[in-house]
Amino acid sequence: MVTVTERPSATLTAGIAGASGYVGRELGRLLAGHPRLSVRATGREAASLVGCDVALLALPHGASGPVARQLADGGTLVVDLSRDLRGEWCYGLPELHRSEIEGSRAVANPGCYATAAVLALSPVVEAAVVGGHLVVDGKSGVSGAGRAPSEASSFCGAGEGIAAYAPVGHPHQAEIEHELSRRSGLDLSVTFTPHLAPFTRGLLVTAYARLTHRLSQREATDLYRDAYAGEPFVRVVDAPRTQPLRTTNLCHLGVWVDERRAVLVVCAAIDNLVKGAAGQAIQNANLMLGLPEHLGLPDVELAL
Amino acid sequence: MVTVTERPSATLTAGIAGASGYVGRELGRLLAGHPRLSVRATGREAASLVGCDVALLALPHGASGPVARQLADGGTLVVDLSRDLRGEWCYGLPELHRSEIEGSRAVANPGCYATAAVLALSPVVEAAVVGGHLVVDGKSGVSGAGRAPSEASSFCGAGEGIAAYAPVGHPHQAEIEHELSRRSGLDLSVTFTPHLAPFTRGLLVTAYARLTHRLSQREATDLYRDAYAGEPFVRVVDAPRTQPLRTTNLCHLGVWVDERRAVLVVCAAIDNLVKGAAGQAIQNANLMLGLPEHLGLPDVELAL
Amino acid sequence: MVTVTERPSATLTAGIAGASGYVGRELGRLLAGHPRLSVRATGREAASLVGCDVALLALPHGASGPVARQLADGGTLVVDLSRDLRGEWCYGLPELHRSEIEGSRAVANPGCYATAAVLALSPVVEAAVVGGHLVVDGKSGVSGAGRAPSEASSFCGAGEGIAAYAPVGHPHQAEIEHELSRRSGLDLSVTFTPHLAPFTRGLLVTAYARLTHRLSQREATDLYRDAYAGEPFVRVVDAPRTQPLRTTNLCHLGVWVDERRAVLVVCAAIDNLVKGAAGQAIQNANLMLGLPEHLGLPDVELAL
Amino acid sequence: MVTVTERPSATLTAGIAGASGYVGRELGRLLAGHPRLSVRATGREAASLVGCDVALLALPHGASGPVARQLADGGTLVVDLSRDLRGEWCYGLPELHRSEIEGSRAVANPGCYATAAVLALSPVVEAAVVGGHLVVDGKSGVSGAGRAPSEASSFCGAGEGIAAYAPVGHPHQAEIEHELSRRSGLDLSVTFTPHLAPFTRGLLVTAYARLTHRLSQREATDLYRDAYAGEPFVRVVDAPRTQPLRTTNLCHLGVWVDERRAVLVVCAAIDNLVKGAAGQAIQNANLMLGLPEHLGLPDVELAL
Repeated sequence: MVTVTERPSATLTAGIAGASGYVGRELGRLLAGHPRLSVRATGREAASLVGCDVALLALPHGASGPVARQLADGGTLVVDLSRDLRGEWCYGLPELHRSEIEGSRAVANPGCYATAAVLALSPVVEAAVVGGHLVVDGKSGVSGAGRAPSEASSFCGAGEGIAAYAPVGHPHQAEIEHELSRRSGLDLSVTFTPHLAPFTRGLLVTAYARLTHRLSQREATDLYRDAYAGEPFVRVVDAPRTQPLRTTNLCHLGVWVDERRAVLVVCAAIDNLVKGAAGQAIQNANLMLGLPEHLGLPDVELAL
Repeated sequence: MVTVTERPSATLTAGIAGASGYVGRELGRLLAGHPRLSVRATGREAASLVGCDVALLALPHGASGPVARQLADGGTLVVDLSRDLRGEWCYGLPELHRSEIEGSRAVANPGCYATAAVLALSPVVEAAVVGGHLVVDGKSGVSGAGRAPSEASSFCGAGEGIAAYAPVGHPHQAEIEHELSRRSGLDLSVTFTPHLAPFTRGLLVTAYARLTHRLSQREATDLYRDAYAGEPFVRVVDAPRTQPLRTTNLCHLGVWVDERRAVLVVCAAIDNLVKGAAGQAIQNANLMLGLPEHLGLPDVELAL
Repeated sequence: MVTVTERPSATLTAGIAGASGYVGRELGRLLAGHPRLSVRATGREAASLVGCDVALLALPHGASGPVARQLADGGTLVVDLSRDLRGEWCYGLPELHRSEIEGSRAVANPGCYATAAVLALSPVVEAAVVGGHLVVDGKSGVSGAGRAPSEASSFCGAGEGIAAYAPVGHPHQAEIEHELSRRSGLDLSVTFTPHLAPFTRGLLVTAYARLTHRLSQREATDLYRDAYAGEPFVRVVDAPRTQPLRTTNLCHLGVWVDERRAVLVVCAAIDNLVKGAAGQAIQNANLMLGLPEHLGLPDVELAL
Repeated sequence: MVTVTERPSATLTAGIAGASGYVGRELGRLLAGHPRLSVRATGREAASLVGCDVALLALPHGASGPVARQLADGGTLVVDLSRDLRGEWCYGLPELHRSEIEGSRAVANPGCYATAAVLALSPVVEAAVVGGHLVVDGKSGVSGAGRAPSEASSFCGAGEGIAAYAPVGHPHQAEIEHELSRRSGLDLSVTFTPHLAPFTRGLLVTAYARLTHRLSQREATDLYRDAYAGEPFVRVVDAPRTQPLRTTNLCHLGVWVDERRAVLVVCAAIDNLVKGAAGQAIQNANLMLGLPEHLGLPDVELAL
């Protein structure tokens, strides 16, 4: 976070709902370093946020939708971080929906796993080089479980080990299927199994697909580099690790081809609280407000 | 580890090669609590171990094979923990090769990932209820990288994040394919991607397979319970976690069916240093020596 | 933990109150490997434990005292792990109160920090070579905070950092002062500040004292070696670390003299759940029951 | 870190020696977000850095001094982060030496432990309310051990436990004694024992002093608040934790009085790589270059 001495043109204001949760606090941290957008109000009710240039809602699923609708109906720009309006509102994944978001007044921020999985698979799904069932194995840090204390997210419960949770039927599974199907024009089927791993921030998905067309390692890498050329936050790298992406809005992708078995493996790494939540919400807000998309969003790796 | 006051019949002796590495030290720790088998010699050369009732070799791949052969040729019972003789010697996975091991004088201990993956998939592969390509996503603790210091296994390099390594072509991939193909009678194809996760001990594989036959959740669970009925160390549980298995020789399996998508998801959790290495070696040694299979092998969960 | 095939003389029974907490579960884990003592009953009420040869109470402070008294009055041997009866019942630190414990029917198990601090300082306090105020800086793993979920003991709250808690006035401060004063015959004053550190098991105290007599490094080490000669669980080592003591009943001590400044620094490392709680309780129970003191208590280091 | 679109007046240049180490990389990360100072050159030789407005040297102890002298002799402003010139060059602790640093062309950055210990104790040492021997118990994250791989700093060696290292005679001990003695005008004696704790970034010192004057809790807190009033990075808080200070240049102090025992306990928390090294170096560089002291230095807490 950078303390900027002067903020000459920081005239735009944001309101945060759910500011005390992990994602809400991350919104506050990021906006403290944003040169043009600053927090004016926080509160759980729509009334508290009316008058802000943009409302960022980090409320629990179920509670968020009604507040989001009320604010949007009243004319406030809204980015809703819950899953309540996904499928209905504009899908806030800027790399794939940029122009739609720019013209939108109501955006549903994607889920953290869906962000990584869709960025990992959309290039090959759109290029129609993979087929059959897709497998997405997800690993998230413990902050993904939220701030409410529980034995599963306790230090002694979550530390020194790993486990799957919701091995089938996690809500992000349908979100991933829905978005990838939309991009491919086909009715795709995805298995998605998330795991809780002992680190605070970070999320990795490892996606597996059968190749229907011969694709060399070089061609696969090029396909991904082309798909994300010019993107400020997405990079194709040799070995994506979640660690250096902590506190940043970056997404790192790694692509491998097993030519003999005709299998493609793609890893996507993000910080679940930033590109997977608060950072992406600000990226969306920047687009909606006509600001440069990357404003206030960390893009320098944290070596350790 | 239990200090037993008297060891009336502990007349059998073991020799350890590679006693200073992580696996070698684990062999020492386990044998210190074994009521019938105690360490008589350590050393990297065959000569040091001649005269022991059984030699347990935890040498680096490449170095182990010649020592193992020399000892075996000289008449010493050998369990080799390297990959050098897998495919050639008796495959030391007691749950699937028990009688063969009992009659064997030279056993190749399976790889840690292969142990988990084969235990996870062999029941459905043998029952011929899955087909097509199999996906195995592995997560190992850092002890799996061995004791030699490196940046990747340093605290700052491995902590607070996760990453894939050897996304295609890991040696355990062929080992898994080989063993599952042998069990099914078919030429199976497996994708295996291992990940390094920030904990010391523990290994989880999440295996994904397409169902070729309709199988309910109940039927799948029963199939696994039947397959491992009576096994002292393998249990089918609701939610396998690696954490409570640390320091034990247990393997916990979880089985889930996504009936709509005809997908089976199986998790197998072990301690990579115990059931994945030293514990399984002692389990094999017990069988080879005619001792009760479970002797000296921890089977009580470590709650935390 | 070792599965022992036969338990020919395991005729003694223990009852555990508070079996679901961290310490209670550790009592269960250790007794599962005890060759002579096995768990017959669990329960929070005195009535549940009547008839057992020994009752081990791991109930919350305040709740434990009345149950302990009721059982003791009824003739059951009791080891109470709460602080309720410390100062009143026999102080269950076997290295310093062995013969008293052997003849006792009601023992108060010491606090985890007090165990380490008293073992660290009693040799020099008894030898009257230090004087003035004593400083004890304690560091405990998160299991010391107990099983009830809270933000402080959550993975995201406790991980990746360290902090003091109760910097003055922690209950163990008075316990340490009381016991050290009793041993020295003086009215000693101790500052004790505990810290919560990001590991699950383990506790280290670093104790600082001014030397009133000239003492070389060699003499100091000898003084400690003599003080604990023959003890099954206490060892003077070069560099005590908590890590290899996890799951064991060991206490490692390190002693350093700064001759120029006339300062003695002593570190004591234990597993807070074993030597700091459940293991020491079983050590006391063994003594009270006339069993060998070390029975069922792990004393082999866990290399990793 | 914030990506700033325009850097209208970023005309000043920095050179970094030792850019690949942990501290060097942190210098690069921080300068990437600095609005007025940017990295122009890196290299281990003086020649590489000549012509930069300021040289920041993060070389190993011993190697740094000669390069620093050569650059300073040639007229380059230098901040040397090694211990080679401490005691000789201006001591770069801005809170206590600000005006001297502003006028200096050659500054020796303090050690990480010394930064925290001196900030913790100088208010009471200067106010002459404490006396006798001082005790400083330090706890550092593993990044403090540097980037060179070793068993002690490996994940399996450093994780899940804590240990003291250099219990007497650590080089920072003399540095702390020297600086506190200078501030008090007395010849103070300090015991300093550092510990390695299992987190990546962060450092806590817990300092213990005997009060020679009656001081209430309130008076002690006020004394510290007054001493650091107006400081941009030092704050007196209720419960200092290292975790929220990661990646920031903040120092949090906590002060407690045990009136009965006449003891003062002070905790100081910092990020060892930032306020303990790279951040403080940039703070010094800002002062030497006539820039606002806080420029480019993160001061927003990282909630998790």
